[in-house]
Amino acid sequence: MYLEHITSPEDVRALPASALPALCQEIRDAVITSSAAVGGHLGSNLAVVELTVALHRVFHTPHDKLVFDVSHQTYPHKMLTGRARAFLEPEHFEDVSGFSSPRESEHDLFSMGHTSTSVSLACGLAKARDLAGEKYDVVAVIGDGSLSGGLAFEGLDNAAELGSGLIVVVNDNEWSIAPNRGGIYRNLAELRATHGTAPNNVFRALGLDYRYLEGGHDVAALEAALAELRGCDHPVVLHVHTEKGHGFAPAVADPESWHHAAPFDVTSGGRAHTPVPADSADENYANVTGALLLDWMRTDRRVVAVSAATPYIMGFTPELRERAGAQFVDVGIAEEHAVTYVTGLARAGARPVLGIYATFLQRAYDELWHDLCLNAVPATILVFGASAFGTTDATHLGFFDVPMLGSMPGLTYLAPTCIEEYLDMLSWSVGHEGGPVAIRVPVAGVASRPDFARAEDYGQGFEVVREGAGVAVLALGDAFPLGEQVANELAAHGVRATLVNPRRANAADEGLLGRLAVGHRVIVTLEDGVLEGGFGERCARALGADDVRVLCYGLPRAFVDRYDPAELLASCRMTPADVCADVLAALGREA
Amino acid sequence: MYLEHITSPEDVRALPASALPALCQEIRDAVITSSAAVGGHLGSNLAVVELTVALHRVFHTPHDKLVFDVSHQTYPHKMLTGRARAFLEPEHFEDVSGFSSPRESEHDLFSMGHTSTSVSLACGLAKARDLAGEKYDVVAVIGDGSLSGGLAFEGLDNAAELGSGLIVVVNDNEWSIAPNRGGIYRNLAELRATHGTAPNNVFRALGLDYRYLEGGHDVAALEAALAELRGCDHPVVLHVHTEKGHGFAPAVADPESWHHAAPFDVTSGGRAHTPVPADSADENYANVTGALLLDWMRTDRRVVAVSAATPYIMGFTPELRERAGAQFVDVGIAEEHAVTYVTGLARAGARPVLGIYATFLQRAYDELWHDLCLNAVPATILVFGASAFGTTDATHLGFFDVPMLGSMPGLTYLAPTCIEEYLDMLSWSVGHEGGPVAIRVPVAGVASRPDFARAEDYGQGFEVVREGAGVAVLALGDAFPLGEQVANELAAHGVRATLVNPRRANAADEGLLGRLAVGHRVIVTLEDGVLEGGFGERCARALGADDVRVLCYGLPRAFVDRYDPAELLASCRMTPADVCADVLAALGREA
Repeated sequence: MYLEHITSPEDVRALPASALPALCQEIRDAVITSSAAVGGHLGSNLAVVELTVALHRVFHTPHDKLVFDVSHQTYPHKMLTGRARAFLEPEHFEDVSGFSSPRESEHDLFSMGHTSTSVSLACGLAKARDLAGEKYDVVAVIGDGSLSGGLAFEGLDNAAELGSGLIVVVNDNEWSIAPNRGGIYRNLAELRATHGTAPNNVFRALGLDYRYLEGGHDVAALEAALAELRGCDHPVVLHVHTEKGHGFAPAVADPESWHHAAPFDVTSGGRAHTPVPADSADENYANVTGALLLDWMRTDRRVVAVSAATPYIMGFTPELRERAGAQFVDVGIAEEHAVTYVTGLARAGARPVLGIYATFLQRAYDELWHDLCLNAVPATILVFGASAFGTTDATHLGFFDVPMLGSMPGLTYLAPTCIEEYLDMLSWSVGHEGGPVAIRVPVAGVASRPDFARAEDYGQGFEVVREGAGVAVLALGDAFPLGEQVANELAAHGVRATLVNPRRANAADEGLLGRLAVGHRVIVTLEDGVLEGGFGERCARALGADDVRVLCYGLPRAFVDRYDPAELLASCRMTPADVCADVLAALGREA
Repeated sequence: MYLEHITSPEDVRALPASALPALCQEIRDAVITSSAAVGGHLGSNLAVVELTVALHRVFHTPHDKLVFDVSHQTYPHKMLTGRARAFLEPEHFEDVSGFSSPRESEHDLFSMGHTSTSVSLACGLAKARDLAGEKYDVVAVIGDGSLSGGLAFEGLDNAAELGSGLIVVVNDNEWSIAPNRGGIYRNLAELRATHGTAPNNVFRALGLDYRYLEGGHDVAALEAALAELRGCDHPVVLHVHTEKGHGFAPAVADPESWHHAAPFDVTSGGRAHTPVPADSADENYANVTGALLLDWMRTDRRVVAVSAATPYIMGFTPELRERAGAQFVDVGIAEEHAVTYVTGLARAGARPVLGIYATFLQRAYDELWHDLCLNAVPATILVFGASAFGTTDATHLGFFDVPMLGSMPGLTYLAPTCIEEYLDMLSWSVGHEGGPVAIRVPVAGVASRPDFARAEDYGQGFEVVREGAGVAVLALGDAFPLGEQVANELAAHGVRATLVNPRRANAADEGLLGRLAVGHRVIVTLEDGVLEGGFGERCARALGADDVRVLCYGLPRAFVDRYDPAELLASCRMTPADVCADVLAALGREA
């Protein structure tokens, strides 16, 4: 076995060319075996095995600079840069992160996990190199799926102005997470069909030199093509045709399901799961969303579900997409466009519902502000993964949502506490004429509160769930169960706390807060989002002039990585016992 | 005269073709005369006179939908849609805004002022039309300068998937605000040179139909070209060659200075001013910035000044750009790329300083979070116009900056109170190894505090400027003069307040706050930014458990438009008298 003896890229370069196909097979097996055990981005990593080997044969990292876009496809790169054990030995399968990480290796330049950044990063590296008068190659590897993001275009457009060497490898496996969407993909198809000779060529049109290589799984051909570009004095695109899931038949047959695989059984071919198993018999926020929207679509042509390349999060499986027809739109990885497009849809009378991960919605901050909110159109944004219980990679944290959305003028940002309330809020939002509504879709689990109080207008007040005295606990969205536990813990100490479901994440109900300030000495806010700029701070300000203590609990403004949610919350004293102790101390009592 | 009789586009369509050149001349004269009197976007409006007349001859707004990108070039459109008086009669010159405004007219579909949104908005309009089974034309008019923004690419890329009619007019006047930067401009030049026949064609490569028209000031030719596209069943680009500043020689000769003109003298040809008169003998934040950076560049090749199409705000006049050589980079209108590029620069050892308007920095929210902050590289962002005293158009408000930047992990966001402190913070930031630093460049005027206290580390504590008791006033950045006035007003009432310069906008100095909470009964925060998610709320939370009243003053989370800064502040009780009265009331005293 070669792989277990590779401790650095030098070992890859020392191998005879004849050994490379076997090395590639070992890498491929390790991708499959480790992903089967702990889950992973299977399809994209299987597509870049040969390309990664060839890159490390030709370029000498860390002297040369290599930037993988998104970096979810860096498992082979990690194996060749001293981290093979994390893919070969089950007890080490979780030693490394799923993305590029400078903390792990000097061969990883950036922490990253959002798409379309690589060319811009590479432009910066190359420019700094030139200013310093140094000589090395800078290589960006970008998948076709990432090309629909506007940032990738900005990077390619600016690369043409660089005036020195930069290599952009376009790894074209014909897939985004879901099928690619956008005119550029017709051009890529044309280029593949003509082996790069089609007169229409988006890269050349942007002023870049261009080469095509069909054999994306021919390691010798890749090595030769890359070697030709070594030391190149101008920006050049190498367009390589690969196959998503290459070497693992189930992933080739169903690239969408196998984009990211939950643990599976290799021998049987297993069955991959998309992050939310949309065909599951269990009720979950994805499939109730899809089912409800589809139901509305049957009678209302104005309803349009919009996704930016992640349709499954809102329950739009291939089957539901088929049934929704023209009323479902996947704009591809283009979050900015998604929000501005939704603004146009709403202005012309449609009723758009955009489902998007909180961490990716960040890319559309200005479009939310300048397009959606400034124009105050009726549209619904379903914000997924906005919680301490969402994705735990530092690159994909979703719990910065309240600060992000909290200062948007005219936006109503709701945080339901259970599935019944979520569905009621969603229904309300689609009929709401008072400007855009965003909903923080619960993550912590499908809580049920059949007796939740419906609101006439969710943009208005907080809901008092339980009347008490002395202490009030305001528990937002996914933090509501904690609020109940805190209230119970306080009850055990003889304090019958008022329990409040704020419902709305981006406004303080000043009327209710004023009332609480009279009959309560301590007010507690609980949120599973960042404290700075969050819900609690709004309440603290609203109560600033009152004679009441305000204790705010939330998450740190920090890139916590691969954390355990319960541990993170405990480190913020977000446990029933700690909150209770703090409250009792504020009341001047011992716990 | 024709123009004064035009009350709606129907009147334009009723004119004989022979009258159109005269009408165009009247429009052009009105653009020049009104801009000379009150300032305005001269160059772009002069370029679209004939195009706008032709658009209204062919398309029937508001039934057909017309979206101008940025919309700073809508003066002719406004003249033809019932608002001519605002350009003809001096007493009405300020009746209409400088941008598209649905409040003014049903012919304006969106409030807008940021670039690159038009194609995405138009895609949404067209899709909603198709779902409703209606028939009308949707036309986006986008300038060449706006094409470098990634959102424009996302829109064009997605337009190719629309499957129905959409017309994109590319108004190519060969200029952005400053000269265009990016590979796409070489392609536009190639297309102009070949009258649209060059095989390299970025629009065709994206899957769009394409037509070229050289005569962008030939109203008959424009009308004919547009008439051909009427009712088109697929997305098509009409590339029109125009001249920025057409018909006004000084603007043709110097398009950058005349992009936006301050009031000028028409007869002498006058002299336009860029928004910040960079060659002014007066010291201002633009030219001290440019001078300081250029000085550093002489001895340090690592220093790079970066701009996204607005070099003048950081003092980089054409002359300074020339002197800075490779150490100045204008990436064009591409804010996302700018921030990610800066991340790459810093990672490879350069010392980038990005100067950018707060309102446009919004477009790079995710790049700040995911690229710059996650990677904790040393880089400086100079945030311009972040103040109540910045641009007063709703489309360009800059005072949402603290909520935007306040939740970025690891970012130090500083708010200097005077020019000396600004320069000291800028110097500190460039040597700072503890992650990125942003500086809220003062706007309210060049205040001088020669005795300001230098800090060893601006990332640390607040500065106590004046020790007092009972009341503490924390006055951030541009609100510092108000803080001094409040302290003086309080002194007149026998209260010697403590005055604090927080220096840092995105963190509360908990040590100092704890100390203040002991000796003070009322703590006041003053900021000329949005309250929600702002500086004051951080302090209110930090003080939540203390027996102290916290009064936070700041701006509303609202799209205030064309406001008077003093009036806006007064409406928020941000006057010395009102704050003093509130403080005395909180102290239980009468004013």
